[in-house]
Amino acid sequence: MTMHFVDMIENRVSTNAFDPNKDVPADQIRQLVRLATHAPTAYNLQNWRFVAVHSQEARARLRAVANDQSKITDAAVTFIIAGSLPDHADVAPRLRPAVEAGFMPQRMADGWVDAVRQAYEHHPGRQRDEAFRTATFAGATLMFAAQAFGLASCPMGGFDPDGVARAFGLAPTEIPVMLLAVGHAAEGNWPAKPRRPVAEVLSLV
Amino acid sequence: MTMHFVDMIENRVSTNAFDPNKDVPADQIRQLVRLATHAPTAYNLQNWRFVAVHSQEARARLRAVANDQSKITDAAVTFIIAGSLPDHADVAPRLRPAVEAGFMPQRMADGWVDAVRQAYEHHPGRQRDEAFRTATFAGATLMFAAQAFGLASCPMGGFDPDGVARAFGLAPTEIPVMLLAVGHAAEGNWPAKPRRPVAEVLSLV
Repeated sequence: MTMHFVDMIENRVSTNAFDPNKDVPADQIRQLVRLATHAPTAYNLQNWRFVAVHSQEARARLRAVANDQSKITDAAVTFIIAGSLPDHADVAPRLRPAVEAGFMPQRMADGWVDAVRQAYEHHPGRQRDEAFRTATFAGATLMFAAQAFGLASCPMGGFDPDGVARAFGLAPTEIPVMLLAVGHAAEGNWPAKPRRPVAEVLSLV
Repeated sequence: MTMHFVDMIENRVSTNAFDPNKDVPADQIRQLVRLATHAPTAYNLQNWRFVAVHSQEARARLRAVANDQSKITDAAVTFIIAGSLPDHADVAPRLRPAVEAGFMPQRMADGWVDAVRQAYEHHPGRQRDEAFRTATFAGATLMFAAQAFGLASCPMGGFDPDGVARAFGLAPTEIPVMLLAVGHAAEGNWPAKPRRPVAEVLSLV
C-alpha cells in the first residue's frame, strides 16, 4: 500500500476492537521491529528492547498485568517496548559500525563515550527521561510501520510496569514504556477523536 | 511526494547540517503541528504544547539554552515540544467534540474524568512519564510529516529544560521534552548510522 504519509497520519486511529482470528506472522513481526529500530536515539545508543507477545499463553500473561484489557488477547501481537537506561559502556559497540563504514572518525566516537558519561552517569532522572523518549520514538515508528502494512494498532500506557518487568524478565535497567497492540481491526471501531485547534496548542515566535 | 512509508523510515536520517538560507514558511509550520496533533494520547488528553522557534531572535535565544548547537540557528525552525502533566479537569473539554459527534457516550466521557484522576492525581512520576510519551509521540509524528514535505529534521535532547522553560514562558506543568530542528538539509550530511541486528533487540514469545 502506497499512501501519502499525510493521509496516513490523518487516517490513523487507535484501534480498540481487534479481530481475534487473524494473525500477524513472525516474519512480519520481525519486519516491524526492524523498521522501529530506524527511529532516532541520542548518541545512536539504540537503548531499546522489544518483546513481541504473540503466543496465546504470553498474551494471557501480559493481560494479567495490564488492567485486564481485552485487546491484548484479541490483537495478534502486543509489543512491550522498553527503553534502557543509557550506559556509556554501550557507546563504543553501537558506533563501531559507523566508524568501520568510514564516515565517523574514531576520535569522535571516543568523544561520545565521555559525552554520554557526563550527560547521564549521575543523573538517574535524565536516564529515565531518555529511556522514555527512545522507547516512544520506536513505538511511534512501529505504529506507522504497522499502518503501512495495513495493520491496526493501539498504544497503551495502562499497565503495571513492575508486573510487566517481572512477567517478561526485563532487566532492572529496562523500563517498560508502552504496550503497542498490533493486529487486524474488527468491525465497530470508532473514528479518530477530534483534535484541538492548532492555534490553541502552537506559539509561533 | 508519495513514497511508501517503509522507504521513508529506511531513508530518514537525523540531519546535522542545515542550509541557513532556506526558510520554512509559517503556513507549513502550522501544517506540521496540525499533523503532529494527530498523534495518540492517553484518554485523548492531547496534553501537549508546541513552540515554533522561527525568528532569528528566538532561535538565538533558544541556542543559548541548548548547548550552543549551531543547527538551532541554521535550521529554519526548531520546535520546542512540551508535554503537559495530565489533569483530569482537561478531560471533559477534550472529549466534548467526540460526544457531540455522536460516537462517544456522555457516560463514558464522564467515566474517563474519574479514570484520569485515579491514574495520575497523586502520582507525579506517572504524570511526568505521560508528558514524555505524549510529547515524543507528537515529535515523532512531526518528524515524519516534515520528511513527507521533503524537509530534513533532527530531534535533540541536549538542552537545559529549566532554561528553555524560562526563556519561552512555559508553565510549570509544561515539561519541555525535546527540541526538533526542521529545515532544508545542507551538503555534507552523514548517512544513517547502522542499526543493531533485530535478533539482538527482539524477544518473540
